[in-house]
Amino acid sequence: MDLFTIVTARADYELGALVIIDQTQLPEREVYLALKTPEEIWEAIYLLKVRGAPAIGVAAAYGISVCMQKVDEVDDFYREFARVKNYLASSRPTAVNLFTALERMEVALLKCQGAGVEVLKQVLREEAEAIRKEDAAACRKIGEHGLSLLKPGMGLLTHCNAGHLAVSEYGTALAPIYLGQEQGFGFSVFADETRPLLQGARLTAFELQKAGVDVTLICDNMASSVMKQGWVQAVLVGCDRVAANGDTANKIGTSGVAVLAKYYGIPFYVLGPTSTIDMDCPTGKEIKIEERDPAEVTEKWYARRIAPEGIHVYNPAFDVTPAELITAIITEKGIAYPPFSDTFRGWKECK
Amino acid sequence: MDLFTIVTARADYELGALVIIDQTQLPEREVYLALKTPEEIWEAIYLLKVRGAPAIGVAAAYGISVCMQKVDEVDDFYREFARVKNYLASSRPTAVNLFTALERMEVALLKCQGAGVEVLKQVLREEAEAIRKEDAAACRKIGEHGLSLLKPGMGLLTHCNAGHLAVSEYGTALAPIYLGQEQGFGFSVFADETRPLLQGARLTAFELQKAGVDVTLICDNMASSVMKQGWVQAVLVGCDRVAANGDTANKIGTSGVAVLAKYYGIPFYVLGPTSTIDMDCPTGKEIKIEERDPAEVTEKWYARRIAPEGIHVYNPAFDVTPAELITAIITEKGIAYPPFSDTFRGWKECK
Repeated sequence: MDLFTIVTARADYELGALVIIDQTQLPEREVYLALKTPEEIWEAIYLLKVRGAPAIGVAAAYGISVCMQKVDEVDDFYREFARVKNYLASSRPTAVNLFTALERMEVALLKCQGAGVEVLKQVLREEAEAIRKEDAAACRKIGEHGLSLLKPGMGLLTHCNAGHLAVSEYGTALAPIYLGQEQGFGFSVFADETRPLLQGARLTAFELQKAGVDVTLICDNMASSVMKQGWVQAVLVGCDRVAANGDTANKIGTSGVAVLAKYYGIPFYVLGPTSTIDMDCPTGKEIKIEERDPAEVTEKWYARRIAPEGIHVYNPAFDVTPAELITAIITEKGIAYPPFSDTFRGWKECK
Repeated sequence: MDLFTIVTARADYELGALVIIDQTQLPEREVYLALKTPEEIWEAIYLLKVRGAPAIGVAAAYGISVCMQKVDEVDDFYREFARVKNYLASSRPTAVNLFTALERMEVALLKCQGAGVEVLKQVLREEAEAIRKEDAAACRKIGEHGLSLLKPGMGLLTHCNAGHLAVSEYGTALAPIYLGQEQGFGFSVFADETRPLLQGARLTAFELQKAGVDVTLICDNMASSVMKQGWVQAVLVGCDRVAANGDTANKIGTSGVAVLAKYYGIPFYVLGPTSTIDMDCPTGKEIKIEERDPAEVTEKWYARRIAPEGIHVYNPAFDVTPAELITAIITEKGIAYPPFSDTFRGWKECK
């Protein structure tokens, strides 16, 4: 069974292009873009045609590798690499994975000083592939640990998109769902539509449906109803940043789902790579929440205005779920239970 | 200060028309419709151009009064009244207030058998006005009782629309807000947009903004964030049906807001007329929840598809908030605290 018929990002060296699915056109149209120049790649990242922190990192790595295959002068190679690297790094200034991936490509290149141009090109191809493979392997590990907490036939609920389209292959929050799908677990998944940007409706519902998973779309405010009826046995969400005490920043609405899960006695699981845990951030209070354009709430997607002109809007992009509402935090290194900080410290030390 | 510059429904006898604001065009356009025939009135109710249970009752009463002013033969009067009444009653088969208002008009007319046609017309005009006035007076009472629980400067949160556009003048859930506005309470109100039909964004935000109230629109999933930051001191919601034990059916999402309010230690108030309390319905378990068209979630309002074709959707129109999450239920007769049933019985007996 091939779960992943969508390709988030891959390098096509014959075509000389980074190939991505244009996520801004999903789910209406499945359009693949072949991006051949640094400018095209920069724009695709900037316009969120490829999104999700790990997916951006992979796209940037493949992207710079593809661009560098066209450079044949060894004298120009390092200068050109630095130029493209700095340029791509400016496409989304807050995306840590973007810098990390580009830095890693540079380190690989610097190890080969004095080598011929063909060797340098091959090093970049291999390093980009390694980044994607390690990312995918971490996601699979997250999936395995997550799946160990679930039982066949369970109802699951997820918020936003932390799946195949955001990360390599299995995703993070969706990894146990995909792994369970491969193993015949027969989960029923509820996907919150996730206002205002509708990642749940546009991306999670789309990718789970594509993979043959039984998925039902609900509005965010229906989660309470679905839980009350006993249809949900676990909540799985991703994370943008986890503080040292376990407080977790994730897409707006996540903390509300966590409060509901607590009230209805449903386990609430946060899934993500250990790189998301920030030991320099003691608690959620230190996490600054980005506020975004009110038009995302009042205008975007709509055929007509659905709110009065001039209305005040509060549009935070994230919220912080306090550690006390989290049953477990699941990473590629294992499962942390409260109090989280001891386990986190162990993971970080054996890095 | 004139709070209510929007007219939900009124009779214009000079024009020979029921005048309503077309709620389906709000907030983009403020269009008033002058409805002169039973067919036009029927269609306006059917197409939700006028909505909200009490507002429909008032519109039907004014509507039949306006139509009957054009009948000049006393012999035809009762037959024509019965015809129009039955016809209008078929416009929204589940709206109890529609039948109640039309029945009441008929009872008033039957008391005057033998009177001349001008007397009959006047009776209808007076009865329709009485229905609206009693409705408005009950809302004002609800507002007074509600306001007694609030303090100046409070932050309030509401869900869906139980205001001026749904009910006469003050509305129910919004009544304490309007009364507070008249008295300089300076409330800050957060309006949940209320997916999928967006009554919060389209109607509540619109009518509160019109009345000069400080209102901020949020997506439903942002309520947790707003509460966590200490911006909300009370939640005010309306009700579609209250069971004898206090379990309350209201717009989908209400129960989730109640769970959040409990977690954050915020009082959760339900406001509505005593006619909404159904003593024949012992608990919320007996309340059947209507499921609506999936296209409301996936297509309505949008310029393009935001969910994949063929996706499963669960779209309940209401949910039931358990009595244990409700701080008080506020009616025109006073304030009920848990356990609610004793107070309810007292109210119903002295009816």
